[in-house]
Amino acid sequence: MNSIDLNADMGEGFGTWSKTDDDGLLQIVTSANVACGFHAGDPRTMRRVCQTAAERGVSVGAHVAYRDLVGFGRRFVDVEPDELRADVLYQLCALEGIARSAGTTVRYVKPHGALYNTIVTHEAQARAVVDALTDWGAGVPVLGLPSAVWLEMARDAGLSTKHEAFADRAYLPDGTLATRSRPDSVLHDPEEIAARVVKMATEGTIVAIDGSVLDVQPDSVCVHGDNPKAVAVAQAVRDALGDASVTVKAFA
Amino acid sequence: MNSIDLNADMGEGFGTWSKTDDDGLLQIVTSANVACGFHAGDPRTMRRVCQTAAERGVSVGAHVAYRDLVGFGRRFVDVEPDELRADVLYQLCALEGIARSAGTTVRYVKPHGALYNTIVTHEAQARAVVDALTDWGAGVPVLGLPSAVWLEMARDAGLSTKHEAFADRAYLPDGTLATRSRPDSVLHDPEEIAARVVKMATEGTIVAIDGSVLDVQPDSVCVHGDNPKAVAVAQAVRDALGDASVTVKAFA
Amino acid sequence: MNSIDLNADMGEGFGTWSKTDDDGLLQIVTSANVACGFHAGDPRTMRRVCQTAAERGVSVGAHVAYRDLVGFGRRFVDVEPDELRADVLYQLCALEGIARSAGTTVRYVKPHGALYNTIVTHEAQARAVVDALTDWGAGVPVLGLPSAVWLEMARDAGLSTKHEAFADRAYLPDGTLATRSRPDSVLHDPEEIAARVVKMATEGTIVAIDGSVLDVQPDSVCVHGDNPKAVAVAQAVRDALGDASVTVKAFA
Amino acid sequence: MNSIDLNADMGEGFGTWSKTDDDGLLQIVTSANVACGFHAGDPRTMRRVCQTAAERGVSVGAHVAYRDLVGFGRRFVDVEPDELRADVLYQLCALEGIARSAGTTVRYVKPHGALYNTIVTHEAQARAVVDALTDWGAGVPVLGLPSAVWLEMARDAGLSTKHEAFADRAYLPDGTLATRSRPDSVLHDPEEIAARVVKMATEGTIVAIDGSVLDVQPDSVCVHGDNPKAVAVAQAVRDALGDASVTVKAFA
Repeated sequence: MNSIDLNADMGEGFGTWSKTDDDGLLQIVTSANVACGFHAGDPRTMRRVCQTAAERGVSVGAHVAYRDLVGFGRRFVDVEPDELRADVLYQLCALEGIARSAGTTVRYVKPHGALYNTIVTHEAQARAVVDALTDWGAGVPVLGLPSAVWLEMARDAGLSTKHEAFADRAYLPDGTLATRSRPDSVLHDPEEIAARVVKMATEGTIVAIDGSVLDVQPDSVCVHGDNPKAVAVAQAVRDALGDASVTVKAFA
Repeated sequence: MNSIDLNADMGEGFGTWSKTDDDGLLQIVTSANVACGFHAGDPRTMRRVCQTAAERGVSVGAHVAYRDLVGFGRRFVDVEPDELRADVLYQLCALEGIARSAGTTVRYVKPHGALYNTIVTHEAQARAVVDALTDWGAGVPVLGLPSAVWLEMARDAGLSTKHEAFADRAYLPDGTLATRSRPDSVLHDPEEIAARVVKMATEGTIVAIDGSVLDVQPDSVCVHGDNPKAVAVAQAVRDALGDASVTVKAFA
Repeated sequence: MNSIDLNADMGEGFGTWSKTDDDGLLQIVTSANVACGFHAGDPRTMRRVCQTAAERGVSVGAHVAYRDLVGFGRRFVDVEPDELRADVLYQLCALEGIARSAGTTVRYVKPHGALYNTIVTHEAQARAVVDALTDWGAGVPVLGLPSAVWLEMARDAGLSTKHEAFADRAYLPDGTLATRSRPDSVLHDPEEIAARVVKMATEGTIVAIDGSVLDVQPDSVCVHGDNPKAVAVAQAVRDALGDASVTVKAFA
Repeated sequence: MNSIDLNADMGEGFGTWSKTDDDGLLQIVTSANVACGFHAGDPRTMRRVCQTAAERGVSVGAHVAYRDLVGFGRRFVDVEPDELRADVLYQLCALEGIARSAGTTVRYVKPHGALYNTIVTHEAQARAVVDALTDWGAGVPVLGLPSAVWLEMARDAGLSTKHEAFADRAYLPDGTLATRSRPDSVLHDPEEIAARVVKMATEGTIVAIDGSVLDVQPDSVCVHGDNPKAVAVAQAVRDALGDASVTVKAFA
């Protein structure tokens, strides 16, 4: 593998609140997961992120979520499938129109937070998300964990599926992520994180928490945006990939 | 004038709450002002209204509003123009995508409630709404009161402007609506309302509250949807127009 | 048993939307479960319901819920216990102050919808609700299903616990409610519903869906408020109890 | 004057978003204007701020606002007086109960943002806020600008009224604040801000933007909390007051 995509969550503010340094991140990553208004992302912020992404050639992705501002989309909500389907469709359409008015389009879809985690296994909600993608009809790729049930359904629906790995998360030997409640589940050192991403991109491997070596073939690597050191970490990753002669470019 | 359009507000529910008999109204009117989620209109409701409108050949219009669920978009909010612009763009795009997935498109735009009233005179907010229409780029007609400053701006921006009259509201001699605080400002008798609409459509006139006769040339007549007798009133209007050999058809 | 309480959900509107005929119900029931703003219940509605309840001597109960307006509190939300605890405390305090300003107080607590159902078995969320009651410190009784784990915790915390039965819901032989997905799970005939409540109050029994006879000793019977026939059903129940010489009075 | 109160806005987060360093500010100021959930301030944050304020002996004040999360309560909303009255009452009661559960009480009321500015002159909304205070009945002092119409109404309603000055805002010769659109309207240098506050507290004067000297007799000085240097500025003010032998203590 000689190229990789870097994606980060963006536009995760609401009104006067913000959480991500969108401008800083948009100088580094190649794919922007843009909040669509349900867990974060007021329209003015969405518009600004899309405009900057368009200027810099960064791919815009729809970061669709449960309707849950106070919980930032991080809590499972037992929403009925037909409501979830309409909620996701609404978010996709809103972002798509805003992206178009900014001179770009939505090039991929990556669910956010609890929805991302839930539809790895929850069939009814996974189906609802894929139905929304079909309703929408844009036919863009979807981005998620390799084993997710919703990715399988998306593939069956004729969509291209892309896999991602996480730059700063510890992996278990079975390839899943160590739960955040473990103290060693999140890496913090920019150099260590960067070295892992280089290994993913050049060797297709990642060292799990027990030292075992896993095969990974990510189409994209997620760098987190919602912490104070996010831009520094992303820059370290990008620099290390450059030093290793890995091209960083959008998958979509 | 041998034809007229009848428009009504629709989809004015939120979650388990509802206010309008969408299915009943969609059998009568020719234009549906669909709430876009900011004053009312959850995505599931928007989708259902668009599907039914598409089946029945009813034109879908975007009923954009201030972000104010608890106030149902009926209170002036002193929102900054660039935020209003993005809010309106978001609503237009969300409804447009949902309409397309239902096999139709947004064919006109009619602001709702306090926004409708405000941009008759408030230049900065009027400009924001027209800028949003330009950002969106669909080029569909806009519907409002003849004298509204935002209609003038929309015309200058190259958009077609359509005028509406109100079936059940009393008019002052200067052609404006009598304020709702007057006890005689709203008509309730279906036959009387129907007769007024026939007069508008066939003679181009309306009798003001003081008995004077006004010239009106509405492209559309608004029948209100949010009261228990709404469907009966709309049906009386439609029947009377039929009896008077006036064709009822969408302007857009 | 010579007396029984009738409770109904009330104030389940939001802004211009409404769902319950509060004024009609407050002439019939003896306990009002008042929405506190999280699933429904804007402050103006809360104030009006408390004022009318105070005038008529109806007990005000806090109908606390998940923060979920669009879902009307009917969907499970996987909220963290310390957030749920604060959310419930906030609702209790808001209603308590409004009730006091109306000349009454909150006399009992009955959770709403998905929260009501969840804390029958979900220990962490049940604990959070009981902790909120302890934080609040009013010491009023709580109302729920006999077997609920949160009632047990409330009892351990020194609170009085009251049991309710449902006037219009079918029971399984084990004493639980038939799921709403069964077509025969909800009764609609006012006379039949009234006869069941009389049987509960006078004989302490209810006939389950298979014909078996269950012992019930409810402190209160819930009549539903959110359907068009709600007032008529409640009136039929109240009349039948009167005919059977059962006193209808608040438990709290 | 040998003593002065320092107040700051606090708890201005929502869910995972935050804006103020509550813990840092609560080590410096003597009065905490606590957001009550309508412009900011989720229940968990409110509870935490009240607990810390109680531990440190900081006075809790109710920072009531328009219901406007996305606008952070900074935009005028033309809400009907009886709705505003109920909204303010709700916020007061919610915070009061949470404060009590934390071992303290609400000791004063200071409206926030656009509501604060509006009720300086808007009689119907000013009356609504004062009516809410009367409904509530706690009888605590209110804090605002000396000339505000709502303070006059509060005084007529028997409430104690307290005046505040602003540490970092430029004053016009007539004693009003320079509009924020002027580049010199906000001071940024901690030493300069501190020196101004010392002058207010020891000499009862402030130098206006044109060099003229104004008499001010503030009961409290507001230091802003929602910027990155807020804690450093507040500390500089507090230190300077200490050096000038001015006691810093709550007015309520």
